[in-house]
Amino acid sequence: MEERLEHQQLDSYLEPRLQRIERALREYLPATDKKPATLVEAMRYALLSGGKRLRPVLCIASAEACGAEMETVLPTACALEMIHAFSLTHDDLPALDNDTLRRGKPTCHVQFGEAVALLAGDALFAKAFEMIAQQSRLSPPGRVIQVLALVSHAVGTNGMVGGQVEDMHAESGAPTPDDLEYIHTHKTGSLIRASVLAGGALAGAEKESLVSLDNYGKFIGHAFQIIDDILNETGDPERLGKAVGSDRERQKATYPRLFGLEKSQETADNYITKAVNALQDFGSEADPLRWLAQYVSKRDH
Amino acid sequence: MEERLEHQQLDSYLEPRLQRIERALREYLPATDKKPATLVEAMRYALLSGGKRLRPVLCIASAEACGAEMETVLPTACALEMIHAFSLTHDDLPALDNDTLRRGKPTCHVQFGEAVALLAGDALFAKAFEMIAQQSRLSPPGRVIQVLALVSHAVGTNGMVGGQVEDMHAESGAPTPDDLEYIHTHKTGSLIRASVLAGGALAGAEKESLVSLDNYGKFIGHAFQIIDDILNETGDPERLGKAVGSDRERQKATYPRLFGLEKSQETADNYITKAVNALQDFGSEADPLRWLAQYVSKRDH
Repeated sequence: MEERLEHQQLDSYLEPRLQRIERALREYLPATDKKPATLVEAMRYALLSGGKRLRPVLCIASAEACGAEMETVLPTACALEMIHAFSLTHDDLPALDNDTLRRGKPTCHVQFGEAVALLAGDALFAKAFEMIAQQSRLSPPGRVIQVLALVSHAVGTNGMVGGQVEDMHAESGAPTPDDLEYIHTHKTGSLIRASVLAGGALAGAEKESLVSLDNYGKFIGHAFQIIDDILNETGDPERLGKAVGSDRERQKATYPRLFGLEKSQETADNYITKAVNALQDFGSEADPLRWLAQYVSKRDH
Repeated sequence: MEERLEHQQLDSYLEPRLQRIERALREYLPATDKKPATLVEAMRYALLSGGKRLRPVLCIASAEACGAEMETVLPTACALEMIHAFSLTHDDLPALDNDTLRRGKPTCHVQFGEAVALLAGDALFAKAFEMIAQQSRLSPPGRVIQVLALVSHAVGTNGMVGGQVEDMHAESGAPTPDDLEYIHTHKTGSLIRASVLAGGALAGAEKESLVSLDNYGKFIGHAFQIIDDILNETGDPERLGKAVGSDRERQKATYPRLFGLEKSQETADNYITKAVNALQDFGSEADPLRWLAQYVSKRDH
């Protein structure tokens, strides 16, 4: 009962924000018939083919929990989605996961060829930093640089890309729980965590609040990746828009592989509880973050 | 006679700066035996295997011409070299140029495999933005954001990556002089131009000086790419550290292909004259930029 209420509240919270995000992404990256038209088409294909928009939503909800307005953080929120799209585009390439289907559509390299897909990823990444620079029209420069620092760190060597490399290595070996922890916290967790933190930082939150948000982000990042692993085993390919079972085929390091499905769901639920607990010093202004935590754990795609 | 003197002066100017750049690059990206060790090794391989370090040198010379000290701009200067290394690593991949030799050594993907090379490029790119954020310890945040904006723009859709896509397209068609102009100014020119401009911006140069520097950067960028095209036809593979004639094989859009060798060298020399003229309002503090312009035109590798 309470769960259904939360679900409805989350839906009413999300609807206008998702609409605004979709509109902003299209405005920030308009189609063009001038050079380099193909590149822009591929970037838009990768960016605008749906998706949960979880990272921009988290950034916005976090900023709102700290008293800022959605419009203030929109460029950075969209930048985070561009980085996500860049990482998926590169991840899908034949040299990496060689995936052909994403959100029910051919992946970018299937549609545009490997070279254009690779460069579209690069260009989305560059565009993300342009967006963060644009953020300086709406926020004090010191805060914008703080965001730049935390986002670039979350993406790079000791963040997402580092996690991707170790994920790849784990395919051929026998990953330990420590390896898995490293992969999860870096490959997926770090950008989710940075999304939450960026919202707080742009809102000018106090150090204490930022620590709480950082913990919240860390825990939902964990839970998110565990659920991802579970869905890759048990999910509905139609809902997911991609094939399932691919992790198992590739002998990827996953939670279900190491701990079984039941234990994995339990661990994810524990992380969600920890995430919600991390927000205890916030009032109702952080409710959307709390609903989002439940959503992460209950999602089916 | 005068030319030899300039050459000596440039050498004495460059020596301590190149040493400092090499040292800083190694310090900013230290080797590690922790995860993700392979990624870091590949990044260091791509970044520390020599190279002219033209972009950081230009950034430093430009900052010095505007009254700043080398140490002040070092993080950004090194970031520009990381971006250059990222672009070469991706460019060499089988999906793009499929080059196997760079600076006399196997290219990154030959050495580490395609997946790691691709991710090393991504990580170098992320690291570059981390370096620019680090720049904020030494420069006012407003200037750092200006640099972030101009560098990310120079790399992305309407910069380097846009140029790469159009370069690729031109291989299969019959490129016009306009196509060639677009490719040159974007693929190579934009990052060189941004390197010069970033130095001036960090030094807090007046608008007028920035316009002069921007013109200087634009013209040497043009000249640099024309000489690159010429060297690909006539250069010594040993000096260049890579095969020659590859542009012709791939029917790439190049100056020599469209205008012949002699006319191409003449055009490059004209751009160098224009570059030097753009600096007329600067005194002797801009001499290193003038020497560098001559060097770009006379280089043999």
